[in-house]
This record gives sequence, C-alpha cells and structure tokens, in this order.
Amino acid sequence: MTTGLPFDDIRNLLSTMPQADGSAVAAVRERDGQLTKPPGALGRLEEIVAWMAAWQGRDMPRVERPVVAVFAGNHGVVAQGVAAYPQAVTAQMVANFQNGGAAVNQICKTFDLGLKVFELALERPTRDITQDAAMDEAECAATMAYGMEATAGGCDLLCVGEMGIGNTTIAAALSHGLFGGKAEDWVGPGTGVDSEGLKRKADAVRRATALHKAHLDDPLEVLRRLGGRELAAMAGAILGARMQRVPVLIDGYVATAAAAVLFKANPSALDHCMAAHVSAEPAHKALLAKLGMKPLLDLGMRLGEASGAAMAAGVVKAAVNTHANMATFASAGVSDKG
Amino acid sequence: MTTGLPFDDIRNLLSTMPQADGSAVAAVRERDGQLTKPPGALGRLEEIVAWMAAWQGRDMPRVERPVVAVFAGNHGVVAQGVAAYPQAVTAQMVANFQNGGAAVNQICKTFDLGLKVFELALERPTRDITQDAAMDEAECAATMAYGMEATAGGCDLLCVGEMGIGNTTIAAALSHGLFGGKAEDWVGPGTGVDSEGLKRKADAVRRATALHKAHLDDPLEVLRRLGGRELAAMAGAILGARMQRVPVLIDGYVATAAAAVLFKANPSALDHCMAAHVSAEPAHKALLAKLGMKPLLDLGMRLGEASGAAMAAGVVKAAVNTHANMATFASAGVSDKG
Repeated sequence: MTTGLPFDDIRNLLSTMPQADGSAVAAVRERDGQLTKPPGALGRLEEIVAWMAAWQGRDMPRVERPVVAVFAGNHGVVAQGVAAYPQAVTAQMVANFQNGGAAVNQICKTFDLGLKVFELALERPTRDITQDAAMDEAECAATMAYGMEATAGGCDLLCVGEMGIGNTTIAAALSHGLFGGKAEDWVGPGTGVDSEGLKRKADAVRRATALHKAHLDDPLEVLRRLGGRELAAMAGAILGARMQRVPVLIDGYVATAAAAVLFKANPSALDHCMAAHVSAEPAHKALLAKLGMKPLLDLGMRLGEASGAAMAAGVVKAAVNTHANMATFASAGVSDKG
Repeated sequence: MTTGLPFDDIRNLLSTMPQADGSAVAAVRERDGQLTKPPGALGRLEEIVAWMAAWQGRDMPRVERPVVAVFAGNHGVVAQGVAAYPQAVTAQMVANFQNGGAAVNQICKTFDLGLKVFELALERPTRDITQDAAMDEAECAATMAYGMEATAGGCDLLCVGEMGIGNTTIAAALSHGLFGGKAEDWVGPGTGVDSEGLKRKADAVRRATALHKAHLDDPLEVLRRLGGRELAAMAGAILGARMQRVPVLIDGYVATAAAAVLFKANPSALDHCMAAHVSAEPAHKALLAKLGMKPLLDLGMRLGEASGAAMAAGVVKAAVNTHANMATFASAGVSDKG
C-alpha cells in the first residue's frame, strides 16, 4: 500500500462512472409481466431484479459469483476511550474470519457466498483523528485502490462490510463531517459502550470535526482526515465495483458512512448500491435517509462484519432465481386476468 | 375428507397444547453469551434461535427438514365479482407448483426447502359466504385434520401458505367476523381488482358477516361459516405443528387470517408461530397488530403461495446455522469486553 491512485485519479473515476443499462431493465420488466403472478406481487424482489439487470447490463441478471468482502482496520482514536473492546480484538476477529468461526462465515455458508477478508496494517493504527488527520493522501488513495481488489477474480454481487474496534466513532465523525448536525446525533453504543463511553465518543467526534473544520467541503479530504483504512478501502471497493458493473450491497452504519463519501462527491455514485439492512446502531437510519436509501432488511442486527449484507444477499439470490426460472402464463397454461 | 375430528376434538387440542421449553431457551442464551460477537448484536436472529429452541425443545435447534406447505381451495364467493382472475387459475397454479414453475418453487430451491402442495376439492368450491355457511362442521373439522398432515413424515420448520382465487375476500370476512371494525378496513386489492371490484369485495364481506352475525362469538364457527377449505387446512396445520413442537412461519394476509381463528380460540395458540413478513395487502398490517406479531420481513410482497414464508425460512436457516457453528470467545482466542 505504498503506491496507488492519488485523489485526482479517484476524482476522475467519480466523473466517468458507467450508468444504468436501461434496455436490460426494459427486458426484465417485459419478462416480469409474463411470469405466473399478478403484476408487482413480488414487491421488492422485482425491484432487486431490475436493479441487478441495470448494473450487470444483462437482460437476465445472475448471482453465480457473489463475494462478501470484509475490510479490517485499527484506529488511533481508541486512545480517547471510545471502544468497549480492546484493540487486539480486530486482529483476533480477522483470525476468526479466516478460521470460519464468525457469524459472517455461517451466513456465507448458508447462502453459498464467497468470503474475502482484507487486513489493513492492523499493527499500525491510523492516527487519532482528534489530534491529526487519520491518513495522508497517498495512503488514503492507495487504500482505496486496494479496496478495488474486492471484485478481482470475478464477482457478480459484492457485499461490503468491515471489522475495526473503534470504527463506529470513525463512522460518526465521517457522518458529522459530511452532513453536519450535532455530534451526539451520529454516535451510538457500537459494540456496547456505557453512557460514559457514549459521552466520550460524542466528545471525540466533536473535537475531531472541529480540528478539521477547514477541510470538510471536500469529501475525499473528510475521508482521509476523519476516516480510517477499512472505510477508505470500502469506498474504493464500492467505486471499483461500479466501474466493473458489479451491484453492491452495503452493510451497516460504518460501511454506509464509507459509501456516503462517494455520494457527497457525486450523488449518483451509489446508484449501483442497495442498503442491505438498517442496523440497530441508531444513527444508521438517519444516514440512510441522507443517502435516500431504503434498506432491504430490518432485523435489529448491529454486528458489522458484512453480516447484514450477507443476509440480504440471500434475498437477492432468491429474487434473481425467481425471475430466471419462473414459468410464464403461456408456458404454464395459466389464465391471465379475466 | 368425509371423516375427521369434530369441533369438540379441535377444542380439546386447543386446550392441551404443549408449552415453550424454558430450559432450551436458557441453554441458547447461555451459549449465545459465549459466541464471538457483542451481546445482542445479531438482533432478531438471536430471538429466532431462542424461539426455535423453545418450540423444538432442543438446546441446539436445527433446520434440517423445513417444509413449505401450500394449501389450495376454491370459493363460492367469487360469484359476487370479487376476484381479478378466473377461478380456473387455482387449479392451473396448483399444476404450476407441481411442475416447479411458480415463484415459491424457485424460493424453495434457493433455500433448500421441501414443498408440499395440498389440493382441496377444487372442483367443488365452498358455498358462497354471502348466502350460506361455507362448510358444515364435519367438513371444516375434517379439513383441519387434513391440514395436520403438513408435518407428516418429519418436519422441523413449517411454512404455511395458500393459493385460492377469491381468498383475500374470505380472509377479510374472517378478520371482520373475528375482530369487527368496518368491512372496508379488511379488504384490499388482492391480486389486483379495480376500485369497482374493491367495492364489491367490501359489500360481500359486509353482507356475509351480517348473515352470520349470530355466530361470531365462536371462532371455529366463524371459520366454517366465513372461511374456506385452505384456511381451515392452514389452521389445522398450525395447530398440528404445535402438538408436534414444530415452529411455524405464517405467510401473508390469508394465512394470518386462518391463524387468527386459533388465536381467538386461545390467545397462546400462536406462540410457536412467527409472522414471516408483512404483505403489501393493506389489512395484513392491522391483522398482525391484532395478533401482537412483528413480521420478520417487509419486502412489499403480496403473492401468497407461501412465498413470504419461504423467504423468511432463509433467515431462520441462517440464524440457526450461526448459533450452531460460531466459535466462542474461548475457542477462538478472542478477548471479551475490556
């Protein structure tokens, strides 16, 4: 991660993104009207199929190589007493992912999803955002480029998530930096801090955004100053997926905060994304509203590690399979409306 | 279906149902606290596992023989012009289920769920509820007994759904008969009637409940008078599952109306059930509120044929697999809270 794209190249990608394939969407809607069900009766499953077609650029979208990408990073801001677990847990959980023991592993097995874990220099946490910028530009851009590897080797649906002790504080700082409001509105219990910890989180977010207040107009600057490596990598993964026409399911609050950086840079940058779920972390709902995103699932989950996105991938698989394999009124000999 | 249980035997079952296994729930909670995640971070997935344990009576619940049961019936009330499709579609769709061409077939394949289709004398619709009782007691009780076959041959999770042209009118009549309110609050577009059709539905429901108004205190009488065969069979399937400690996912509005009969007879009769989803059929939300049920999914689906329940079965599988196979803090060498 010592070389990579500078921000100018990232900005260039953000202005040359592929757009939705309208003819694939039209083909989906045409077939949809012939399938043995009342029009619209599959609700969001139909919307998912049209979205998959739009971004894959295929009349018959498919999910044959779904990838769940989990990015892990560590954060200097934990020195401010914002986390319920020790920082060593990030690396321990990466090992747990690699050994198949985490929640996301079981969800991936259930729905037959590939899992990739990206460990981002855990032994060298980013700088404390209350004292300094988290990263310099070269490192932030290189980390974004590294995130683009998520779809390498083939992928037709990308689930983006993270692991990083302290990173709900980073997500809150990013959200506050990008959207303003009050610091306390963007913080929540994360993995379970107590009320004193919650005050320390809000205070850290307030001090961090105050320190960097002269630079909040540029979303990439917000990312490098108030963000973290796994957030930069997720932003890169989402942008890279767009360039390759891979639809993306965004996991919880932290992943959404990373996506919000792209949205602020270009409001159409997340058109290839769906919000997989709304987390129980309270600020996630408000952040999704800022992005105009309606989550697929609401299961009270707040684990991160792409667990919500992997759950939603099961829904997407069912939607795509339904569209591809249902009989038509004609083929099944079913009467259409009387 | 010429013999079967009379209502007295059904009433007896309703008063001798097995109760939740508290020690299995305690075992689940104990293990849950040791798994490599913050307490409560899997939200409703944790609630699902506890519920499965409570009703299976197993410390480690499992989903190895999930069954999706679709019950199909025809209804004399279609003579009132309440349906958007011709009655022949019920049998045509049963053939479609048997040939693997319907939406529910694809969802079952996606999540590896068994599918059973129960065809209930389609050539002989029940009597028009605006003119007469839909069924006599012997037939209603026998149909409930037949529904209990859904779990025959082994089943550890039952999804209950239906197909029947005209049956959202039946669901509305049942709901109105059981819970009162205004007839128009319980009717909706179903498979897609226009505004004139919607008026005819409300009118039919109003006339039907008025005709049978002397008998609305007894839920089983409401079922036989205002119901239909697939609704009686679903009520039987749900009750039979309870007797065998099989947890149940209830599909949409029509399946929930069938379940509501049992709830009215005994408010704890649905404790082994979860509402799989909330349908786009407007009255479903109100009916779930009457039953105190919070749906797992909200995907704008309104197809019936157990499609929403089958989607939710994917969620239940993931929940149970996660609980069974995740590593503990001790086994994975992950530090618990600092």
